[in-house]
Amino acid sequence: MTKTRGPGALDPQMRLQPALPVEELRRLLSAAFPEMFSSQGGLSILEIWHGGSRVRQAFAPGSLRPGGTISGPAMMGVADAAMYIAVLGSIGWKPLAVTTSFHINFLKKPAARALDAECRLLKLGKRLAVGEIWVHSEAAGDPVAHASATYSIPDR
Amino acid sequence: MTKTRGPGALDPQMRLQPALPVEELRRLLSAAFPEMFSSQGGLSILEIWHGGSRVRQAFAPGSLRPGGTISGPAMMGVADAAMYIAVLGSIGWKPLAVTTSFHINFLKKPAARALDAECRLLKLGKRLAVGEIWVHSEAAGDPVAHASATYSIPDR
Amino acid sequence: MTKTRGPGALDPQMRLQPALPVEELRRLLSAAFPEMFSSQGGLSILEIWHGGSRVRQAFAPGSLRPGGTISGPAMMGVADAAMYIAVLGSIGWKPLAVTTSFHINFLKKPAARALDAECRLLKLGKRLAVGEIWVHSEAAGDPVAHASATYSIPDR
Amino acid sequence: MTKTRGPGALDPQMRLQPALPVEELRRLLSAAFPEMFSSQGGLSILEIWHGGSRVRQAFAPGSLRPGGTISGPAMMGVADAAMYIAVLGSIGWKPLAVTTSFHINFLKKPAARALDAECRLLKLGKRLAVGEIWVHSEAAGDPVAHASATYSIPDR
Repeated sequence: MTKTRGPGALDPQMRLQPALPVEELRRLLSAAFPEMFSSQGGLSILEIWHGGSRVRQAFAPGSLRPGGTISGPAMMGVADAAMYIAVLGSIGWKPLAVTTSFHINFLKKPAARALDAECRLLKLGKRLAVGEIWVHSEAAGDPVAHASATYSIPDR
Repeated sequence: MTKTRGPGALDPQMRLQPALPVEELRRLLSAAFPEMFSSQGGLSILEIWHGGSRVRQAFAPGSLRPGGTISGPAMMGVADAAMYIAVLGSIGWKPLAVTTSFHINFLKKPAARALDAECRLLKLGKRLAVGEIWVHSEAAGDPVAHASATYSIPDR
Repeated sequence: MTKTRGPGALDPQMRLQPALPVEELRRLLSAAFPEMFSSQGGLSILEIWHGGSRVRQAFAPGSLRPGGTISGPAMMGVADAAMYIAVLGSIGWKPLAVTTSFHINFLKKPAARALDAECRLLKLGKRLAVGEIWVHSEAAGDPVAHASATYSIPDR
Repeated sequence: MTKTRGPGALDPQMRLQPALPVEELRRLLSAAFPEMFSSQGGLSILEIWHGGSRVRQAFAPGSLRPGGTISGPAMMGVADAAMYIAVLGSIGWKPLAVTTSFHINFLKKPAARALDAECRLLKLGKRLAVGEIWVHSEAAGDPVAHASATYSIPDR
C-alpha cells in the first residue's frame, strides 16, 4: 500500500510509533557506520517516528568554507542521513535501502553551528520512498536548505 | 534583503498583501498568455499573497494518459505556473522573470479532475527566488506531486 | 540486469535496435495519446534506439511567453516525452511506465521554433530507469535545457 | 555574455586555458579548505580548464556503508567540489561563489575505491553557472552517479 502525506503531517501530535525503538536504531547505526554515527562523525538521531526523523550534525571546523559558513556537502550529508533514518524508522532495519536521487536548494548561509535536519516521508510505497527534508541551523529559526530524496526499498 | 520562510508560513493567517491585486494580475496574464490563462487553456488564479499563490488547471481530456490518469507534464505545468504567479505576486509585474531550474517528485496518479497547485516562496532574494509547490487533485486530500523551482529575477 | 552508460553512448554508431519498430510505436502512441502525438499536439518521434530517442515538438504559438520565447513547460513536456519513448523503445510497449521524478535546468531562451529533445538512458534496471535529456531549439546548435528523469518500470 | 555548451564540449582537444594555473588553485584551496584539500581530506584536482574540471576523492574507510559500497554523501561531496573548481577555473579566484541548487541521480554502487568527478559547465552567465558532473569509480568505466548544479556568481 502506498501512503502519501500532506503538509499537515508535520504536526508532532500525529506522529506514529517507529518500526523500531530509537535506542535500537542508534545501536545498529553506530555499528554499521562507526565513523559517522559517533562522537567523531557527529551525526546523532534526535527523534524518529513512523514517517519521519530529526537528525543532528554536530559542528566540525572542517566543514567551514570561505566566509565562515558551513559547506554545501555538510548540509547534503545531514539531509541524506535524516532521509535514511526516516526510511529505516518506517520499514525497520533494512540497511541496504539506498538513495536513488537527491535534490537540494540552498536558502541561507548557515552559521558555524550544528545543523538539524527534519525529514518526513511524502510517499512510502513497496519499492520507492519519497521524502522532503528541511535543514536548520541550530542558531536560528529560518531553514538554511530544503531537500527532497527518493529511496529504493529492498524487496521484503 | 533576502528573506527565507519556514513551514509556519503556510498558515493562511500570516498571508501578506500581494504586490498587485489579483484582478490586475488576471488581466495582465490573460493578455500576455492568451492561450494558457483563458477558458481554452484552463489556468486560473485561485489566490495570491506576498510569497505564495494557489492556481488551478481545469481538467482537459487531452492531458489523460494510459491508465486514465493525468500526465506528468500537466502537473509540471500547473506547478510552474503557481511559482511564476507567486513570484509576480511578490515582486510585481516583471513578466520576464524566468525559471532557472525545476524539480518534481510524483507521489500519486491523479484522477481525471482539475489540478490545484499551491506555491510558497522559501527565499526571495534580489536575484533569485526559490519556491516549493504542492500539487493536489481536486478530487482528494493527499498531494499528487511535490515540486521546487528557482527563478531568476530581472534587475529592478 | 542493470546497465549504466557513459558519455560515449551518444555515438550514433553504437545505437542498438529498439524493442519495437518506430512505426509500431508511432501507431501505438497516436492511439493512446491522441491529443499529443498528432498534428494538433505536435509531438513526433524522430528516432528511437535501445537506450535512447529523439523527439520533436512542433512550434505552437500557444507556447510563447513574454519576450517571444518558448515557455518552460513546453521544454519540460518534450523532455518528458523523449524519456518515455526511450523507455518504451528499450523495454517494449509498457504504457503504464511512469515518471517518478524529473529535474531540469534551463540554459537559454529558445526562439519561436520547434524543440528537439534527445534522451539517452543512463541506467535501465528491473524497476528503475534513469535518463538524461538535452533539449535543443530547431534554430540553433547550443542546448536550451538539460534534464534528467527517473521512471518506474512496471513488473514484467 | 552567456555561453552554453553542448555535448561536443567534452572533447579534450577543445579545452581552453583556465582562468588561473592549476598549481595556484591547488595552493589557494589548500589554504582556504585545509581539512578537505589535504592528504587527510583526500580531495585533489586532477585537471582544470576553462569550463570544466576533474577532481578526485581518495578512498576513506569512513565513507563505506553497509554492503561495502561508498555512501551517497561522498559522491555528492566530490561532485560539488568538481563544480566549485570548474567555476573557479573559469571565473578566477572568487571563493564566495556558492551552490544554489544541486541534483544527483545514483546509478551504480561504487566499489571501495577513489571517486573521480568530471564537471563541465553548461552555462556560464554573469550571475549564474550551470554544470553537469559525472562521477566514476576509479575501479570501473561506467559512471556511478550523474549530477547537475547551479552556482551563484558574486558580483565582479
